[in-house]
Amino acid sequence: MKQNSALLLALDFGGTKITAASIRVANPARTTESVTSHTWLQKLVHYLDPTDTVVDSFSKMVEMGRLVSQKQPIAAIGVSFGGPVNHQTGIVAYSPHVQGWEAFPLQRKLEELFAVPVAIDNDGNCAAWGEFAQGSGMGVAHLLYVTVSTGVGGGWILNKRPYRGQGNMAGEIGHMVVDPGGPQCSCGKRGCVERFASGPFMAQDLAHELGLSPGEVDGKRVAELANQGDKIAQKILIRGADALGFAIGNAVNLMAPDRVVIGGGVSKSGEMWWTAVRKTAQKTVLPGIALDLVPAKFQDDAPLWGAINLAHSRI
Amino acid sequence: MKQNSALLLALDFGGTKITAASIRVANPARTTESVTSHTWLQKLVHYLDPTDTVVDSFSKMVEMGRLVSQKQPIAAIGVSFGGPVNHQTGIVAYSPHVQGWEAFPLQRKLEELFAVPVAIDNDGNCAAWGEFAQGSGMGVAHLLYVTVSTGVGGGWILNKRPYRGQGNMAGEIGHMVVDPGGPQCSCGKRGCVERFASGPFMAQDLAHELGLSPGEVDGKRVAELANQGDKIAQKILIRGADALGFAIGNAVNLMAPDRVVIGGGVSKSGEMWWTAVRKTAQKTVLPGIALDLVPAKFQDDAPLWGAINLAHSRI
Repeated sequence: MKQNSALLLALDFGGTKITAASIRVANPARTTESVTSHTWLQKLVHYLDPTDTVVDSFSKMVEMGRLVSQKQPIAAIGVSFGGPVNHQTGIVAYSPHVQGWEAFPLQRKLEELFAVPVAIDNDGNCAAWGEFAQGSGMGVAHLLYVTVSTGVGGGWILNKRPYRGQGNMAGEIGHMVVDPGGPQCSCGKRGCVERFASGPFMAQDLAHELGLSPGEVDGKRVAELANQGDKIAQKILIRGADALGFAIGNAVNLMAPDRVVIGGGVSKSGEMWWTAVRKTAQKTVLPGIALDLVPAKFQDDAPLWGAINLAHSRI
Repeated sequence: MKQNSALLLALDFGGTKITAASIRVANPARTTESVTSHTWLQKLVHYLDPTDTVVDSFSKMVEMGRLVSQKQPIAAIGVSFGGPVNHQTGIVAYSPHVQGWEAFPLQRKLEELFAVPVAIDNDGNCAAWGEFAQGSGMGVAHLLYVTVSTGVGGGWILNKRPYRGQGNMAGEIGHMVVDPGGPQCSCGKRGCVERFASGPFMAQDLAHELGLSPGEVDGKRVAELANQGDKIAQKILIRGADALGFAIGNAVNLMAPDRVVIGGGVSKSGEMWWTAVRKTAQKTVLPGIALDLVPAKFQDDAPLWGAINLAHSRI
C-alpha cells in the first residue's frame, strides 16, 4: 500500500468480553513485523452474557469493529481469540466461553464483511507478541509469555517471531504436569500447573479447606487473605506459585528464552506470590542459564496489542 | 562458489573420541539449509585417552581433517563439539572431556589452518540437525531431539531451522527437574532427568542397590539385567524411562513439536524401556496434542551429519 498512514483494527474475543480498538500506523511500510506506535485511537468493550450465542457475539464483534473504525477506511484486522484457533486457515477450533464457535470460519467471515485482510490467532500467542513488541518483552529475541488467570496459558516469541508449533498448540505451560499423583485438572490429567495456580482452582481449594460453598471466594480473595496473614490461604497461594515457578524453571532449561513475562490477574497477587515463583524457578534452572522473570506491562491489553501486530503483518 | 560439486568436512569432538568424515555435495547451490546426500566419502575415528591435552586433541583433529580431505580441496568445515560452545563466535565455553579447551577459539583456529569457512555448534544441536535433515526427523517442521547416553541432552529444530536460545543453551532436557526432592545430579540440583535416566547414574544406582563397587556395572548392563528379568535392574531402568517420558511429555505440552526423536546408547535398552517412555510421555501430554515419538536413525553419526549441514550452511 502506498498511503502514508493506515488504520489497523484489533478485536479481542476474551473469556468475559469482546474488545475492539484501533490505531493509526504512521508508516505502514513493514520494515519489521511489529508496530512501534503506542496510542489507541478508540477502544470499545462489550461484556459477554451467559445467554450470548455465536450469532450474538459475532454480530457484536462486527458492530464494534465498524464503530471504532468508522471515521476512515481500515487497512487490516487482527483478531485475538480466547480459545484454540487455526492460525493458517483462520478457523476457530473451539470456544470455551460461548457455544457454537466450533469450526466457525472467523477470518473469512470478517474478510467478506470488511473487505480487508484479516489474521487470527489464540490469545496466548497474541499476548506474547503484544508484550514482545510493545511491552515487557521489548528488545529480546526469545520470549516466553505466561498468563495466570482463569486458566494458565502462554505463548512463545522465538528469534523475534511468533512460534506456534504443531496445530497452533505450543505454549500450554498450564498443562505441564507438576505432580502426576496430584488432584485432577479440567483437562483430565492430574497435577497440572493450572490445577494448582489458576484463580478458580485456588479459590476452589480454599473454599474446600474452609468448608465454604464453591463461589464464595475467588482467586483475588485467596491472594487478599494470604497477604493479610491467613495461613490456609498462604499455603494455597504458595503452592500455586511453586507449581508455576517449577514449570517456568523447566521451560527455561528446555528453551533458554532471554526473558519470561508473567501476566494475568493472579500475577497481581503481590510480593509473597512473586517471591515464591522466582525462588522456585531459580532453584529449578540449570546453573549457566540466566533467569530473567518480569511482570507483564499490559494486563487486559496484551492480546489486543498482539492483534494489532497480526493486522500489521497483513498490510 | 561456482563449482559443480563441493567437498564438505565434518569433525565431531565427542565424549570419548574424535571423528572426521567428508562427503561430496553434488550441487552446492544452497536452495535449502540441509544436505540431502547420504554417503560418506571417508571417515576416521580417534579414541581419546585420559592423558590427552587440548594440544594433543586439537592436533589430532586437524590431522584427521587433512587426511579425510587430502584428495581434493574442501569448501567448508562443520564441527560438532561435545560441550557448550558459542555458535556465534565459534569459541568453546567448556569441555567436560579434555581439559584446557575453555575459551579456545576453535572456529578461528580451524579457519586459519584450512583457509575455508568453519562453523561450530554443540553436539545436541548438531545431532538434532542431522536427524532432521537425514534421519528420523525428515519431513517435519518442528523437532525435539533427545540423546540419552553418558548424559541426557537435546536440541531443537523449529520452523525447519536450528533453535539455539540464550547463549546457545537451549535443549537441556536432561536438567529438567522431575523430583525436586530427589537425589543430587551432577549439575548440583536435585532430581533432574539425567540423574535418573543416564547410563552412568542408572549403573551407580544398581551398584548401590546390589552392594557392588562403582564401575562394576555400566548402563548397558542395567538394561541387560532388566531384560533378563532382574527386578532391581527393572525398577532402575523403568524409573529412568519414566523420568524421561515425563520430561518429554511436558516438553510436548510446552512446544508442540511435530516429532520427538530419541537417540544415544540408553535408547537401545529394548522394548521394556521404550514402552515405559512412551506410556509416561503419553500420560503427560495434553489431550489435543499429538505425540510422535520415534528412535533415532543415526546413533554415533547424528552429530556428524549435523556438522555436515553446518558446513553446508557456510558455502
